[in-house]
Amino acid sequence: MLDRMFDPNAVAVIGASKSKGKVGRAVLENLIAASNNIDIIPINPKDEEILGLRAYPSILDVPKEKNVDLAVIVIPARLVPEAVEQCALAGVMNIVVISAGFKEAGIEGAHRERECIALCDKYGLDMVGPNCLGIIDTDSGLNASFAANMALKGNIAMMSQSGAICTVALDWAEKTNVGFSKFVSLGNKADLDENDFLQFFDNDASTAVIAAYLEGVKNGPDFIRIARHVSQSKPVIIVKSGRTSVGSRAVSSHTGTLAGSDAAYNAAFRQSGVIRADSLLEMLDMSRAFSSYPLPKGRNIAIVTNAGGLGILTADACSSAGLTITSFGESTINELRKILPPAANLYNPVDVLGDASADVYARALEIVLVDTNVDGVILLVSPQAMTDVTEIVTKIVDTIKGSEKPILCNLAGGTRVSEGENLLQKNGIPNYQSLERAVDSMDALCTYYSIRKKKYVPSGEMSVDKEIADSLIKDAISNRKRILGLESMGILSSYGIRVVDSRIVKTLPEAVRVSEEIGYPVVMKIVSPDISHKTDVGGIRLNLQHADDVERAYNSMVSDVHRFMPEARIAGIQIQKMLSGGKEVIIGMNRDPQFGPLLMFGLGGTYVEFLKDVSFAVAPIGAEEAKHMISSIKTYPLIAGVRGEAPSDINSIVDALVRISQLVTDFPEILEFEINPLMVMQDGKGCVAMDVRFTIDVK
Amino acid sequence: MLDRMFDPNAVAVIGASKSKGKVGRAVLENLIAASNNIDIIPINPKDEEILGLRAYPSILDVPKEKNVDLAVIVIPARLVPEAVEQCALAGVMNIVVISAGFKEAGIEGAHRERECIALCDKYGLDMVGPNCLGIIDTDSGLNASFAANMALKGNIAMMSQSGAICTVALDWAEKTNVGFSKFVSLGNKADLDENDFLQFFDNDASTAVIAAYLEGVKNGPDFIRIARHVSQSKPVIIVKSGRTSVGSRAVSSHTGTLAGSDAAYNAAFRQSGVIRADSLLEMLDMSRAFSSYPLPKGRNIAIVTNAGGLGILTADACSSAGLTITSFGESTINELRKILPPAANLYNPVDVLGDASADVYARALEIVLVDTNVDGVILLVSPQAMTDVTEIVTKIVDTIKGSEKPILCNLAGGTRVSEGENLLQKNGIPNYQSLERAVDSMDALCTYYSIRKKKYVPSGEMSVDKEIADSLIKDAISNRKRILGLESMGILSSYGIRVVDSRIVKTLPEAVRVSEEIGYPVVMKIVSPDISHKTDVGGIRLNLQHADDVERAYNSMVSDVHRFMPEARIAGIQIQKMLSGGKEVIIGMNRDPQFGPLLMFGLGGTYVEFLKDVSFAVAPIGAEEAKHMISSIKTYPLIAGVRGEAPSDINSIVDALVRISQLVTDFPEILEFEINPLMVMQDGKGCVAMDVRFTIDVK
Repeated sequence: MLDRMFDPNAVAVIGASKSKGKVGRAVLENLIAASNNIDIIPINPKDEEILGLRAYPSILDVPKEKNVDLAVIVIPARLVPEAVEQCALAGVMNIVVISAGFKEAGIEGAHRERECIALCDKYGLDMVGPNCLGIIDTDSGLNASFAANMALKGNIAMMSQSGAICTVALDWAEKTNVGFSKFVSLGNKADLDENDFLQFFDNDASTAVIAAYLEGVKNGPDFIRIARHVSQSKPVIIVKSGRTSVGSRAVSSHTGTLAGSDAAYNAAFRQSGVIRADSLLEMLDMSRAFSSYPLPKGRNIAIVTNAGGLGILTADACSSAGLTITSFGESTINELRKILPPAANLYNPVDVLGDASADVYARALEIVLVDTNVDGVILLVSPQAMTDVTEIVTKIVDTIKGSEKPILCNLAGGTRVSEGENLLQKNGIPNYQSLERAVDSMDALCTYYSIRKKKYVPSGEMSVDKEIADSLIKDAISNRKRILGLESMGILSSYGIRVVDSRIVKTLPEAVRVSEEIGYPVVMKIVSPDISHKTDVGGIRLNLQHADDVERAYNSMVSDVHRFMPEARIAGIQIQKMLSGGKEVIIGMNRDPQFGPLLMFGLGGTYVEFLKDVSFAVAPIGAEEAKHMISSIKTYPLIAGVRGEAPSDINSIVDALVRISQLVTDFPEILEFEINPLMVMQDGKGCVAMDVRFTIDVK
Repeated sequence: MLDRMFDPNAVAVIGASKSKGKVGRAVLENLIAASNNIDIIPINPKDEEILGLRAYPSILDVPKEKNVDLAVIVIPARLVPEAVEQCALAGVMNIVVISAGFKEAGIEGAHRERECIALCDKYGLDMVGPNCLGIIDTDSGLNASFAANMALKGNIAMMSQSGAICTVALDWAEKTNVGFSKFVSLGNKADLDENDFLQFFDNDASTAVIAAYLEGVKNGPDFIRIARHVSQSKPVIIVKSGRTSVGSRAVSSHTGTLAGSDAAYNAAFRQSGVIRADSLLEMLDMSRAFSSYPLPKGRNIAIVTNAGGLGILTADACSSAGLTITSFGESTINELRKILPPAANLYNPVDVLGDASADVYARALEIVLVDTNVDGVILLVSPQAMTDVTEIVTKIVDTIKGSEKPILCNLAGGTRVSEGENLLQKNGIPNYQSLERAVDSMDALCTYYSIRKKKYVPSGEMSVDKEIADSLIKDAISNRKRILGLESMGILSSYGIRVVDSRIVKTLPEAVRVSEEIGYPVVMKIVSPDISHKTDVGGIRLNLQHADDVERAYNSMVSDVHRFMPEARIAGIQIQKMLSGGKEVIIGMNRDPQFGPLLMFGLGGTYVEFLKDVSFAVAPIGAEEAKHMISSIKTYPLIAGVRGEAPSDINSIVDALVRISQLVTDFPEILEFEINPLMVMQDGKGCVAMDVRFTIDVK
């Protein structure tokens, strides 16, 4: 149905106006200026004709045979809900609400917005906005916006949660000759949101690249599912603001979006194949790269320059981005030797020297391009005394346009490169403003090539005993036990995770008896809902070898805890088999407001606490993602085995992660969760949960 | 004497030419075009007159009364040494050699370069180059270069090791209306180098900002000493290429500079107060900021925007850069409330909304500026439908020019902000191309404010016994012992570092006897010049409690080592008192080719190895720098004391670092060095070196 929104037979402008400076006039003018054959119908109770077009007092007055597919609403907010309903009654199923004064404006506005949403649901309407700049389709010739610049034709579909950022992008694009297929200002996303447009752009034949500025996503799990699918066919590049906590606060005051934690966004974007841009310009740069060039088949980059210094800086930037400065084949070197002077550098980066003619430049580029060790080229030109930048660009434009490998240009300088820059632009070839920006975009192209190759494999069916876990969690809820500790190890067992042999005792004789049953050495831990860091209050005793040890430990532990935390309630003492020779890791989960269960993995102890050496993924995950989580921490070598040390049983961690993923997906009542530590034994010997902590939603 | 180089009475061009396209003509033309009252004298044996100027066959033929202070040499490389000597004989003491064909061109060229250096030394000449673009002074009207663009007048002094990067910077500056006081292409730095020009620029009244592109520094220790001084009065901003190993390789092939390790450059720049730019554009951006604005007095930033989205992105960028998004005083909020509509955001970032007039914008800026909680402002303008960017800029230009706080602008967009951008430029105010670039430059301004406040305090005199260390090292050299291990603990002791009670034994009975003398528990370690990772081959036994333990350990250790490393020579077995309850840290040193002794500090074990959680400083260091090294590792909380744990004796580590700094400064024969571990006890209880390894230069 969104097809009709972007390519309507007729469009009505509710609130169309004659008065200069009014948004209702700007929209009408934009529609008229862009339209080829779309019927434009002003709606205004006061005028019979506006800008030469027949106007109607209400959408209900427009004859049915006009086939109005889209209404653009630019009237005061308080009148919008009624207008929306009238659209529905008139059979106009697509609406763009430009008017502001909704959720962003306080309680009354939020109420109005909910009214509109209810109407959309009731009548099955599709609504963009409210509080937006409008929409543009360069194919159909629709400019239903009050933007000052009309988009040029192109293959980038862009959406933005900020109308102002739409205007920045359009203005930038006009200057740099970058075209769009569709352009959508999302506004408050009351009805249609990024997920709807991701799907729509995916199916849109004129769109090759999808770009977005987002302050948050409305439905995280759907976003992951949809983006994962879309990114397999088209690159999805998103700049997400509110990265830092300071930025997030600013987001809240701006549009009322509750920004998810940045770790969750990073994980979700990675898991769904979204390319995350670090800035607005980077998003535009990258989109332009995808829009203009074929994808490279690998990360082997050649650099061609007439300035050694720029070559080095580019090599630095490539290397930081994880791109390889490729080694050329022998024939490449030989061919370069034939055309370049003796002082030139034939190896990568190729330095054609400051006095290189346009012919030499062009020939060097061609030689490098045919080398099978080259996946992409960064081409640098500095305006040296003998350099005719314009002539060089003239010579190479056709090579770039016909190339099956991306060639990203940086004409470095100002005045003397302007003409060359314009020439590139006229030919639809971007000139990156700095070598770093060219390198970042090359990185995006190369990264997307691997995103496409990676297939998502969901986890298979796990053999778990959901009923046991269910009854344990229900028990906790009915007893209003928000925090579950060691006593809840049964939940883990029921999901197939091995737990340490462990029992809770309440008296010293019981402690000794249980220790003998479990077998020495044992560990004793205090069990208390009030104590989260047991070590700090003397609540853990290790390596107890016989009954005497147990007695001493029992007495001193109880007295220590009373001393350090007199207010702590002691639920009992836990006796555990002491295991050694393993590595301690942590598996945690908390619920992200946008994406739901966010899994965390890291090595135990200080690694997590001070070095933040942890990885994240949004559940549910399969084995591949679990492997990625494990191998992406910096301390991975410590469990993979270093210096002849036997590797830990990584497969068992993968299994545990996937099972935890299933557990927290099955039970939304689990708000937070941590196994700390999970003791991982040598390869083949599995892993054992030593302690656990659940936070249950008991409301 | 460099004063005369940049402001000569007369300048001779050796190799001046009539032929178009020749460098010898370009230089002459540039000199003529720029000069007001400098006498320009072409030297060419074939012509009596060039471009209307009287020419002489040789510099020796120029009459003495011409007072030639500077000769620019543009003849073929093979003729250069002779010309240099003739200059000296003619009394011309300043020379710029533009000609290429020296060190960069192979063995013969390197020989020629050494000839020139010898002549400079012999006659006391000052020489720039060879292989450079030339020099420019906008004050005296000297353009002794073949650059296509003349620099505009300004207060930035720039030097560059790459001539091509000079042309990029000049061309960029012409377009963006940025001016320079002096401009120097360093070329091969055969004689004059960055250190000379740092000092010269420091004393140059027309220079307020010093910028440089470097591929390496020629004399590291001098650089630190000089830059440390200069950066106290003028900001020094350097982009150093060859950051990564790939980039470094490219440097080597480019100018033959041996690039020091990046860690050493980072440390040296930090220690000397140099601001390191990450890219050429960042260096230019930052220089421009220093050139145009007063220094902020702190890191509290206000953001003024007409686009909420841009405000959030800017808050993100500020926060990442460690800038504070300040909280306004009450009166600021009240004043803003008076002029802004209800939907505007009065708090930081201030959102004046999309339809804000120029007056409102200007007023909001003024209100924010007077707030004492604001040290600097980032001003953002997006070209929304109702926005008249040019009018806004017109209204605020005077405020910016008169402001005592920096106001960095980002007019975001393209076509519709061009006029505003030009207007800013015409007034000498930079428009940053992206909000991120504005934020980075603001960060540089704020950082420089703290650099100036920080004073360098060298370490005081240490009580050390240099003679003992000297004789131990001389012994090693005369015995050709390249690697010293535990047997060299005496070197540490002589420099006042406590070492563990430890002896080397060769037989089992001796081992038992020594263990009893030292007192149990003890540790045993293999001593072998061939074994660097003792644990890997079973070469360490801990916690030996009595004679039986010692016997078992002795036998199994010897057999293990034989098994794992049959070729290893065993020099003996070391018996040490086992210390516990301390934290293990590492102090290391290796010699950087540029900067000399590079000290390293980190926590022992995996922290160093996998997490690279270490800090560096170039010796000699004082206590302040040692404290900085210790506190800048991420695992610092582990030694500072966490969760009620007693802090480690950090003062004793400071003392050890300063003593090691002195040791490695006193003895250049120590090539590499590591105490691993240094056992740090609780606060007040000191630290003890447990093991040490020296690499001695025995050649």
